[in-house]
Amino acid sequence: MKNINVGMIGGGFMGKAHALAYASMPMFFWPAPAIPVRHTVADVNEELAKEAAARFGFEHYAGSWEEVVNHPDIDVIDIVTPNHTHAEIAIAAAKAGKHVICEKPLALGAKQAKMMLDAVEKAGVKHMVAFNYRRTPAVALAKKYIDEGKIGKILNFRGTYLQDWSADPQSPLSWRFQKKTAGSGALGDIGTHVVDYARYLVGEIAEVNAVAKTWISERPVQTGGTDKLGTVKASDSVPKAAVDVDDEFMTLLKFESGAIGSIEATRNAWGRNNFLTFEIHGEKGSLYFNYERRDELQVCFSDDPADEKGFRTVYTGPATPYGEGLWPIPALGIGYGETKIIETYDFMKAIVEDTQPLPNFYDGYKTELIADAILASAEKGEWVKVPEVSVLA
Amino acid sequence: MKNINVGMIGGGFMGKAHALAYASMPMFFWPAPAIPVRHTVADVNEELAKEAAARFGFEHYAGSWEEVVNHPDIDVIDIVTPNHTHAEIAIAAAKAGKHVICEKPLALGAKQAKMMLDAVEKAGVKHMVAFNYRRTPAVALAKKYIDEGKIGKILNFRGTYLQDWSADPQSPLSWRFQKKTAGSGALGDIGTHVVDYARYLVGEIAEVNAVAKTWISERPVQTGGTDKLGTVKASDSVPKAAVDVDDEFMTLLKFESGAIGSIEATRNAWGRNNFLTFEIHGEKGSLYFNYERRDELQVCFSDDPADEKGFRTVYTGPATPYGEGLWPIPALGIGYGETKIIETYDFMKAIVEDTQPLPNFYDGYKTELIADAILASAEKGEWVKVPEVSVLA
Amino acid sequence: MKNINVGMIGGGFMGKAHALAYASMPMFFWPAPAIPVRHTVADVNEELAKEAAARFGFEHYAGSWEEVVNHPDIDVIDIVTPNHTHAEIAIAAAKAGKHVICEKPLALGAKQAKMMLDAVEKAGVKHMVAFNYRRTPAVALAKKYIDEGKIGKILNFRGTYLQDWSADPQSPLSWRFQKKTAGSGALGDIGTHVVDYARYLVGEIAEVNAVAKTWISERPVQTGGTDKLGTVKASDSVPKAAVDVDDEFMTLLKFESGAIGSIEATRNAWGRNNFLTFEIHGEKGSLYFNYERRDELQVCFSDDPADEKGFRTVYTGPATPYGEGLWPIPALGIGYGETKIIETYDFMKAIVEDTQPLPNFYDGYKTELIADAILASAEKGEWVKVPEVSVLA
Amino acid sequence: MKNINVGMIGGGFMGKAHALAYASMPMFFWPAPAIPVRHTVADVNEELAKEAAARFGFEHYAGSWEEVVNHPDIDVIDIVTPNHTHAEIAIAAAKAGKHVICEKPLALGAKQAKMMLDAVEKAGVKHMVAFNYRRTPAVALAKKYIDEGKIGKILNFRGTYLQDWSADPQSPLSWRFQKKTAGSGALGDIGTHVVDYARYLVGEIAEVNAVAKTWISERPVQTGGTDKLGTVKASDSVPKAAVDVDDEFMTLLKFESGAIGSIEATRNAWGRNNFLTFEIHGEKGSLYFNYERRDELQVCFSDDPADEKGFRTVYTGPATPYGEGLWPIPALGIGYGETKIIETYDFMKAIVEDTQPLPNFYDGYKTELIADAILASAEKGEWVKVPEVSVLA
Repeated sequence: MKNINVGMIGGGFMGKAHALAYASMPMFFWPAPAIPVRHTVADVNEELAKEAAARFGFEHYAGSWEEVVNHPDIDVIDIVTPNHTHAEIAIAAAKAGKHVICEKPLALGAKQAKMMLDAVEKAGVKHMVAFNYRRTPAVALAKKYIDEGKIGKILNFRGTYLQDWSADPQSPLSWRFQKKTAGSGALGDIGTHVVDYARYLVGEIAEVNAVAKTWISERPVQTGGTDKLGTVKASDSVPKAAVDVDDEFMTLLKFESGAIGSIEATRNAWGRNNFLTFEIHGEKGSLYFNYERRDELQVCFSDDPADEKGFRTVYTGPATPYGEGLWPIPALGIGYGETKIIETYDFMKAIVEDTQPLPNFYDGYKTELIADAILASAEKGEWVKVPEVSVLA
Repeated sequence: MKNINVGMIGGGFMGKAHALAYASMPMFFWPAPAIPVRHTVADVNEELAKEAAARFGFEHYAGSWEEVVNHPDIDVIDIVTPNHTHAEIAIAAAKAGKHVICEKPLALGAKQAKMMLDAVEKAGVKHMVAFNYRRTPAVALAKKYIDEGKIGKILNFRGTYLQDWSADPQSPLSWRFQKKTAGSGALGDIGTHVVDYARYLVGEIAEVNAVAKTWISERPVQTGGTDKLGTVKASDSVPKAAVDVDDEFMTLLKFESGAIGSIEATRNAWGRNNFLTFEIHGEKGSLYFNYERRDELQVCFSDDPADEKGFRTVYTGPATPYGEGLWPIPALGIGYGETKIIETYDFMKAIVEDTQPLPNFYDGYKTELIADAILASAEKGEWVKVPEVSVLA
Repeated sequence: MKNINVGMIGGGFMGKAHALAYASMPMFFWPAPAIPVRHTVADVNEELAKEAAARFGFEHYAGSWEEVVNHPDIDVIDIVTPNHTHAEIAIAAAKAGKHVICEKPLALGAKQAKMMLDAVEKAGVKHMVAFNYRRTPAVALAKKYIDEGKIGKILNFRGTYLQDWSADPQSPLSWRFQKKTAGSGALGDIGTHVVDYARYLVGEIAEVNAVAKTWISERPVQTGGTDKLGTVKASDSVPKAAVDVDDEFMTLLKFESGAIGSIEATRNAWGRNNFLTFEIHGEKGSLYFNYERRDELQVCFSDDPADEKGFRTVYTGPATPYGEGLWPIPALGIGYGETKIIETYDFMKAIVEDTQPLPNFYDGYKTELIADAILASAEKGEWVKVPEVSVLA
Repeated sequence: MKNINVGMIGGGFMGKAHALAYASMPMFFWPAPAIPVRHTVADVNEELAKEAAARFGFEHYAGSWEEVVNHPDIDVIDIVTPNHTHAEIAIAAAKAGKHVICEKPLALGAKQAKMMLDAVEKAGVKHMVAFNYRRTPAVALAKKYIDEGKIGKILNFRGTYLQDWSADPQSPLSWRFQKKTAGSGALGDIGTHVVDYARYLVGEIAEVNAVAKTWISERPVQTGGTDKLGTVKASDSVPKAAVDVDDEFMTLLKFESGAIGSIEATRNAWGRNNFLTFEIHGEKGSLYFNYERRDELQVCFSDDPADEKGFRTVYTGPATPYGEGLWPIPALGIGYGETKIIETYDFMKAIVEDTQPLPNFYDGYKTELIADAILASAEKGEWVKVPEVSVLA
């Protein structure tokens, strides 16, 4: 097995998830397509980078991403920084001939995403956008059923991503609540995961029609860059500043296939934690998935006898996608980490087999086009067409 | 206790539900506001009327609704016929000075509904539209929480009504699939129940933006008028005719309050039986209800301690609305019948106490205005405002 | 259709359920096997009897059960009084040549039950014991699967009946907490329903091994005989008296077939309302039922493909047992009342068709033998054999 | 942070879980109590050991456990071999002065476990038995509620561990189905986890009363030692041999506190995958946990207002035990791996802080005493007292 040296840019919560994946992917998938080596981790704050190296098991650390991107021993650049930094790093990495995996959303908008896509295509490197929830085995099983025709022609799709970690007005104004660093709010942060599900499972989206809301117009300013998500509440004395992104959006969808759909995402849904769901109705069956119970896929087949028909709760395990590499009994159960382990597996495999992984920057770009259309629709109050772009060659 | 003589027009599945309610309401709510007397049941087919009288315990039967509407001993006209007949009967009943309860949707559209509203207002009778699902105790409990401020200012609403009884293309073309008799499809038949929930729980809807689809364009023609819903499948040899109403619609909502929402209804959702649900997020909590598990209301309060916070599954029973009249232990459980028993209780009470019951023809009219707006929006592909009308005096 | 005149002894909560069934059974099952006529209701307190007649729609009332039992026009005696009165009334009714339906548990113990069984057998009348939960359509569906061999040879059974209506020490000392009136506590009141499930679904029980506990040793004395179940809490000033029956028991089971099992019943399970459940594992599949979600049966078939296997949630409706008489769409949903309506249907049918209904006094007697064995086992701390008795000819 | 060198004996499925924990514990809990170093992995088959080293990231490998146990650089011996080898290795490790963590069940029976306990106590090393399910954050939260008195005095406990991976008669006869290698069947393999829950949450068990069954009396002989659990089915031509351990047991429990309980474990429950559950009723509340939905704890508090009372579904996350080290949003979700990561964290912490971790060999011994009592009870058909032993000093 070949070693593949990884340079990771950024070392917050997401860095932990990626480091876990690099360390343990071969434990799960063996023989592994390649052995990912945690070569260097970079952070603008060199002290933080040093600590990240110790914590996440990287051999080296660096105080600037530039030196990592250009290091001759590095094969892969892994971008886990806030959204506004993705483009510059990814383009530089591509120019340096590195394969790139980038956290989602790919960019601050479609224009930037297109530049990134052009860069990686020109460089001929492998590229992936980290819509890790597509890797949940239950979702891969849903895709398998669909591809096998088991639920028939798809009529509709309904996806949600509901959270409550920022429902409290005292949750601080991190980079996730500012347009200049995040691009958008719930839309980019969580809504794009649902857009990715819709494209993955149903196909291309032709038109959208949306509403968007900012429920909490100002929040206490966070000092220090670390993203604590909802685990910290600011005191009343902390000065506040404006939120300029969406807390929630709802959109209708028209798919190119004729199917219809809706997506909703909000970070103000008390009691919903990581309520990433979809329901799909087809001519021959239905599917329901809820990430909060991620080991399970619900499926109903129309041709079951009338008195034996109903949603089946199928637990993923050895018999379902990626089962050969995961735990040997269904419901031993996977967590967030395993979605990243599978993502890493697919990425490494694509590199070694010289294929383009999915979802890649084309998918990231397409998702940005849809996200831009959603924002435009919410602003204009009308249906907005998603620009057609040719599929990556 | 006063006797109130009821004349029921129509004797299908819905007649059974109403007859059950008349027979048993005083058993549940005692002392009863009044004793409903099953006086006469009418059907255009006199034989059917005779049989309905025997089955449903009516003292008399009639071969035409006109004689019932004008019978001097009758106090209440109960309309459980297909949608296209509601207006004529209700208006005649009002003119004859009878109180009227009418199945939903009230009419074939807002124009007709307005005529009905005008007639009952002019006559000064009591009038009710049978959105019985509002009577589910768990839904009444949700309303109570909202009114008490327990979930705070409402941010959003999403409702669904998913069924599969006509998902099979061999389900016959009953009156429910024809515009002339039903007015609309899933929209009027089931979607209006969700519209009623939205208005009841959140308030008036200002604008809608919808898509609608007819998934099965033709169905085998049903012979005989009885509505079997999904229990019968036609053989392949039965000739087919066109469906001219919607099988499914999805709509976005803007409420007058600033809240947003969505509603989806379909009769093509395999595995969903009577999946009438809502989820509401407020500034202080969330609510979730699914009629398929109708004894339960899910509620999350934001001010619970962090390590004790989550959706509570509250079973309705003696401690919740209408509990004094229902079963003495939560989860002995109510069925469809109890929603009708409560409806009858509220209607009889309003008659005796000389108040106007809720929801009444004003609500039925308002719902028709919204339904019309949904259809118009789906056709035009744009936001459509719901006409403002003044609340019933 | 023949009229069958019913004389009902007792008029509390259970009287309401039975009256509902008599009034509405023909509305559900049409043509009905017979039309039950609510002829006379009796209560020792004649004022209560008078009110019960008005409320429950009986034509007559009586201040003593004796006059009802001996009334020439009465065909059926329905016993809905506290447990300690069952035997005397039932035996007198049998002697008077009346068919008898008796609430569960049949008697204060096996000895008394045997006398009742002997009486009805000698009289040649129809007899039924009201284990209505056996009538839940989902339970009847489980029985159907088992009889068709769909889950294979049964290995085990696990049943629970958990409630909390008397978990509060201030819940009053009604007749249900006293040996002289109830015979036993949770065992007779709710545990016998689970014993009935075990016998119905798996077969005869050969041996039991139990523990029993009285968690709340004294309760405030209730004044007045009405059974309010858990809806009333006594104030601290009400004097208390001793509880001499079990609040909870757990028992192991050995079935005659070789299967094993366990049953647990308690009225001290906070948050469980009417948590009557069973889980059955067979060589070819598994079943799970929870009455709190009574429209649903969970079933897993071992021969489903590995990636499509899991518990199916089957909603009962037109396609499942008794579906022809119930609501036309699954999940319109049944409540407690429908279990009694079906019970009445089966009883009337047996009378008209001159067969013995199930479960009858033989089953009630057998259940008492098992209940006695459970109490004996809990006292002695050892396995106790259930006496073998020959099946009713 | 100090490095702690680990020598792991065995390299199957469980080795993967432990290796994952060593590699990633500091990523989760930072600063880590110590950095576990994957020093050496041993297997009797040196080729397998070599492969395990490569796959699991160990620096060295060895063809015998003896050389690892006696290697001067090794601090901790981690035993992940079949049950019958635990004692010899653990005792040798203790004699060599190594800290020991051993998979469950600790031994083939209480006698052997006592020797192991004596050895580690004599050596003065740290020792832990790997009942990892105790580490599930939701279970730790249940313990916290109990310790804080939030559910009051505990009345009862019922636990289950239901699986189906060996329900198929063609599942091979691995070491798990033979007394000489496994000690017992479902009892030791999965039942002991439930025993551990019972002791952890409720307290010591005084007496047991059990039944046990071997449902599948012979299975196809497995060639090769690797434990594939249920992922492989043998063909019909493979010769069979006898199973001499239990497939299922049910036991009643009497706790020293006066609480009662039951435990059931089976590997023949179609549709149950890793259905490790408990339900606890206390005087002030109830708890329910199901590992298949391991991010959730269900809790009901008796003092909630009557119309707001019901089971709450609390998702574990930052606000619940171990939350500081896990994922920053509840329901990002943990899998099997995280239970092992937390276990490693607690073990390393105990070593560094010089305290004895929980559960340790004393707990493992106590659990063996209970398991022996369960087997004895099932054989004799009577209540069997669990020997009292003094708590570890």
